Amino acid sequence: MGVASTEIPEGSRGVFVKNIYLACDPYMCHLMRPKRKSLFILSSIVPGTVIKGCGVAKVIKSAYPELKEGDYVWGIIGWEEFSLVLNPEMILHKIKIKDFPLSYYTGILGMPGLAAYAGFHEICCPKQGEVVYVSSAAGGVGHLVGQFAKLMGCYVVGSASTQQKVDLLKTKLGFDDAFNYKEGHDLGAQLKKHFPKGIDIYFDNVGGEMLDEVLLHMNIHGRVAVSGMISQYNLSKPQGIHNIFSLIENRVTMRGFVERDYVHMHPQYGEWAAQKLQEKKLIYLQDVAIGLENAASAFVGIYHGRNIGKQIIRVSDD
Amino acid sequence: MGVASTEIPEGSRGVFVKNIYLACDPYMCHLMRPKRKSLFILSSIVPGTVIKGCGVAKVIKSAYPELKEGDYVWGIIGWEEFSLVLNPEMILHKIKIKDFPLSYYTGILGMPGLAAYAGFHEICCPKQGEVVYVSSAAGGVGHLVGQFAKLMGCYVVGSASTQQKVDLLKTKLGFDDAFNYKEGHDLGAQLKKHFPKGIDIYFDNVGGEMLDEVLLHMNIHGRVAVSGMISQYNLSKPQGIHNIFSLIENRVTMRGFVERDYVHMHPQYGEWAAQKLQEKKLIYLQDVAIGLENAASAFVGIYHGRNIGKQIIRVSDD
Repeated sequence: MGVASTEIPEGSRGVFVKNIYLACDPYMCHLMRPKRKSLFILSSIVPGTVIKGCGVAKVIKSAYPELKEGDYVWGIIGWEEFSLVLNPEMILHKIKIKDFPLSYYTGILGMPGLAAYAGFHEICCPKQGEVVYVSSAAGGVGHLVGQFAKLMGCYVVGSASTQQKVDLLKTKLGFDDAFNYKEGHDLGAQLKKHFPKGIDIYFDNVGGEMLDEVLLHMNIHGRVAVSGMISQYNLSKPQGIHNIFSLIENRVTMRGFVERDYVHMHPQYGEWAAQKLQEKKLIYLQDVAIGLENAASAFVGIYHGRNIGKQIIRVSDD
Repeated sequence: MGVASTEIPEGSRGVFVKNIYLACDPYMCHLMRPKRKSLFILSSIVPGTVIKGCGVAKVIKSAYPELKEGDYVWGIIGWEEFSLVLNPEMILHKIKIKDFPLSYYTGILGMPGLAAYAGFHEICCPKQGEVVYVSSAAGGVGHLVGQFAKLMGCYVVGSASTQQKVDLLKTKLGFDDAFNYKEGHDLGAQLKKHFPKGIDIYFDNVGGEMLDEVLLHMNIHGRVAVSGMISQYNLSKPQGIHNIFSLIENRVTMRGFVERDYVHMHPQYGEWAAQKLQEKKLIYLQDVAIGLENAASAFVGIYHGRNIGKQIIRVSDD
């Protein structure tokens, strides 16, 4: 592992960076399918080329006036030790607030944080007292959504794949309730038990059977934010959703979104999140794999629910 | 066929009406499933009891001060010659504008008209120049949505089940394009041909395979109004929708609705529609079966696409 060239092409505004953290984002698997539309700025992953993803890096050389040697940045970099970024104005953001671990910019202070915030506030349009369900609730986005919902005064229930995560949600992250969706064979019964009054807002990180079953438990004028479908990315054909009629019966709005449509909100969100972190009103969880050589197994792990909080890879010291 | 009692119970505010027109509304089949939530004011249809549905009637006797003998009303009546309505304030509307055939109040001037209008304007949020696709476009709601979209300056394409209907959409109703979805075996290719620039708004009256395929042709920030699922009501289990990921990829909003949430808009809508009819800027199509004895076959016919425009039943002369 290394880098093709340390030379910034003459006349370009490129920067050469040393990579420190890389994020394992669930949608990246989806980008391995051929012929997908360009999503989240990233285009499809082509075998034999360097994988691109979100990360944190340190500027080594710069031909871009807004960044100088020694600056730290977050944004799109390669899964490699060093990256040459030719369009930094498009895909790199200078890290200005230095009160937090740099790794937070692959999570709560970066793309997943804004995805959770915009997805919850702009797509779900929450009101105080509403019942919110978050799947994959101990994941990088999920554990933030649940806490944002609590800050709004909602009743928040999360699901996860192990008892350890369930306990964490209830004891450390302030969820009102949580359950292990792998326990018991009747998802409908589990939802009925944990949502006796139905669901006003479903923040969907998993898709598939869970989404299908949840539709039957939505309240009138409920909202489903379609944030991700981690259960589906590895299937050759996604599972069918049969309960779409619930959208009519319960007048439900189901809406997909990507973080890039909300980048204009980042400065405001970043300040808000930094303040809440300082006040200890938000807790951020990350799961750090050490070394680029462990990147692949960390990445595969997120599809098996092995991570608690945001899965990242530490490529080098800062 | 007759009526159980002509007597209005003492102390009630009931009315006794002679039924003139009944509407064959696609969702009624859905109400035949047991244990459905109460939809559209109507509750599940129970074998052995009188079917309730939308219709037009004449008041014969009234204990409700707002209605008197000889008034015409539209609203919820029984599939029978006479109906005793005990809660007219909830479910009957007096017909005040008498410039149109009475039957129009089972369609363009009644529930389906408002469903088309509210569904298109409130759910689809159309903008001039956008590409609109309407399925079941020669049906009671569909042929109105297409015309409403043309009045908004949209590019409108409809699909239907026969060449006759396709011709009607293009020559009489002003659709920009139309196609017979039963011709050819590749729905994807048909959609690609008729929507080379993709679909901004899909007004879905059919659900199932069509909805699934359309999701792959939606433009960024597109909207899907889930109005009905006529292809699914007779299945024991609805078909699965596999392409939900398009909601994320294209940031699509998919929203179900029922007309009853928009009844407050009816007076304003009714005036608008009446004016457009008088100016001949809207054409209303209805398919009239004569006699209660033909009600069942007319009703079954809508699931086979036998109707052109709104299928209604003429029960008696006015």
